[in-house]
Amino acid sequence: MTSAAGALAAQMPAQDGDLRFGRLGDFRLESGESIRDCRIGYRTYGRLDEAQSNAVLFPTWFSGTSQQLAENIGHGKIVDSGRYYVIAVDAIGDGVSSSPSNSTAQPRMKFPKFSIRDMVESQYRLVTEVLHLRRLHGVLGISMGGMQTFQWIVAHPDFVERAVPIVGSPKLTPYDLLLWEAELHAIDGDANFQGGNYSKRPVAAMRTVSDIHNLALTTPAYYVEQNRGKDFAGVLAAAEQATLEGMDTNDWYRQLQAMIGLDIFRQFGGDMARAASTVKAKVTVVAASRDHMVNPLPALELARLLHAVTVELGSDCGHLSPGCELPKVSEAVTKALE
Amino acid sequence: MTSAAGALAAQMPAQDGDLRFGRLGDFRLESGESIRDCRIGYRTYGRLDEAQSNAVLFPTWFSGTSQQLAENIGHGKIVDSGRYYVIAVDAIGDGVSSSPSNSTAQPRMKFPKFSIRDMVESQYRLVTEVLHLRRLHGVLGISMGGMQTFQWIVAHPDFVERAVPIVGSPKLTPYDLLLWEAELHAIDGDANFQGGNYSKRPVAAMRTVSDIHNLALTTPAYYVEQNRGKDFAGVLAAAEQATLEGMDTNDWYRQLQAMIGLDIFRQFGGDMARAASTVKAKVTVVAASRDHMVNPLPALELARLLHAVTVELGSDCGHLSPGCELPKVSEAVTKALE
Repeated sequence: MTSAAGALAAQMPAQDGDLRFGRLGDFRLESGESIRDCRIGYRTYGRLDEAQSNAVLFPTWFSGTSQQLAENIGHGKIVDSGRYYVIAVDAIGDGVSSSPSNSTAQPRMKFPKFSIRDMVESQYRLVTEVLHLRRLHGVLGISMGGMQTFQWIVAHPDFVERAVPIVGSPKLTPYDLLLWEAELHAIDGDANFQGGNYSKRPVAAMRTVSDIHNLALTTPAYYVEQNRGKDFAGVLAAAEQATLEGMDTNDWYRQLQAMIGLDIFRQFGGDMARAASTVKAKVTVVAASRDHMVNPLPALELARLLHAVTVELGSDCGHLSPGCELPKVSEAVTKALE
Repeated sequence: MTSAAGALAAQMPAQDGDLRFGRLGDFRLESGESIRDCRIGYRTYGRLDEAQSNAVLFPTWFSGTSQQLAENIGHGKIVDSGRYYVIAVDAIGDGVSSSPSNSTAQPRMKFPKFSIRDMVESQYRLVTEVLHLRRLHGVLGISMGGMQTFQWIVAHPDFVERAVPIVGSPKLTPYDLLLWEAELHAIDGDANFQGGNYSKRPVAAMRTVSDIHNLALTTPAYYVEQNRGKDFAGVLAAAEQATLEGMDTNDWYRQLQAMIGLDIFRQFGGDMARAASTVKAKVTVVAASRDHMVNPLPALELARLLHAVTVELGSDCGHLSPGCELPKVSEAVTKALE
């Protein structure tokens, strides 16, 4: 695009799926630190109705971007943009919103640690200050997007009417922590990482990280079924290359830390029941019973306290069950938002 | 022990459980390379009967030693030394038998790669040339010991009457390979490893390796149940310290490679049915259906071809199921050896 064309595009109304940014200025984090000149990427799909009653926020999963969410938006997909005004939003640290990989003022590991709650607060400011919405009809998200969804319903109980966390969690179990710590340790152990100020990409670390990630992404049975009889060295190398190209290591590191720190009960002194009593949204919890990446137990425990609708996915796809059981998830979301 | 006492001890008959060594001289490997001055550690329990009909070989699991096997030997344990002459044998590379960590001629990564089949051949030479046995009543082993057991029944079909591989495998699945490759990559990625010639121990690598190992050792549900409510940082650090102290990194590396290379069907052109047709031992396969460390599928497939007795362990302990379901395993072994 020439700069003249760019100037013209800037004056035209945004189309469905165009990447836009909300600028939040210096964004103060839970920790007291700030993200300088914070910008939050987002894309909208469908039209906001006159009563502003159909806005649905859809935050990204770990290492995902709003662009990747697009395939889940539309008729017959997870959320129907024919009916809802869908706001796909880039979580902090995803390489599109302000992130270690794209900040000039706070590059790499100089980028402050942030939390899932910080992601939610950045989104609250986006929808209130930039999009000027007074409420959200719904929030839904997959995996780390489901973690943000859980955080939303206690952070802004009056602002969200419906919530659908999908293979998400309100607080991680020891197994989840073991998984993410393994990945952090793999990165820490690479001399090329050097606290994030690497000159060479930490290829060795991300190879190990990719392997660890794939160990937990599905059940062993599914992995064996998918890969038996194939050239295993090729399977492994392709997965490792995809991980390396998929996300900057510093971004990966900071988003991991955000998940590790997740605890929506913390603001209630760790009391799950007290947290549950403040929730006003109608919640539908979608959990995968054989999920080895985000353990379903905390989500199911909270669901009971909330008397939430609970939809369990039982496939051996594990954490990938929402994709393997898409019609079931799509139906659950449709009902949840009705 | 003073050297005089040592000399005296050397003249005394060995007691149950004393560590002894069989010296094999330069031991030629499948690869064509040799382990120089190869010695194989072993301990015996119980008495060999006059007909030499009650010898049972019990090779070690990954990273285990014959000393650690002792707790599984005795009345009410996995194998009864009141009835059988049990030979607990240290697999090559375990730090007791010839290993990267104890070889002066071939230290660290100069120690040649060896295979599960090499372990079995070293044991065959031990029992024939050192212990002068003409046959084994049984071979049994847990995990990598079960892999050796599977290898035994095709390597020396006329020598073994009963075989009980417990959570073992005749050939690894892609998931098993992913797991062990993740651990190898974690070690390779540590600058302190430097191809095994490290001056500082690769602490960072072994921390990651420990985490990876624990991700697969049990089911997520079991790990969560065991560790929920505990100080997680403490749990993690203790496990990492135990791994670091438990085995030399070079030994870990070479035993991992041995498991990765396992394929008892290779000598039959990859034909499982042809391999099965050569087996003469009466086989009892003990497999854990929720094992995430050694996938049970290949063992169960071979069991069907062998018309083997199959005992499935269903606990959420996963690969640790033999410990969690000890009475069931003990009973299976008792019946298998009868």
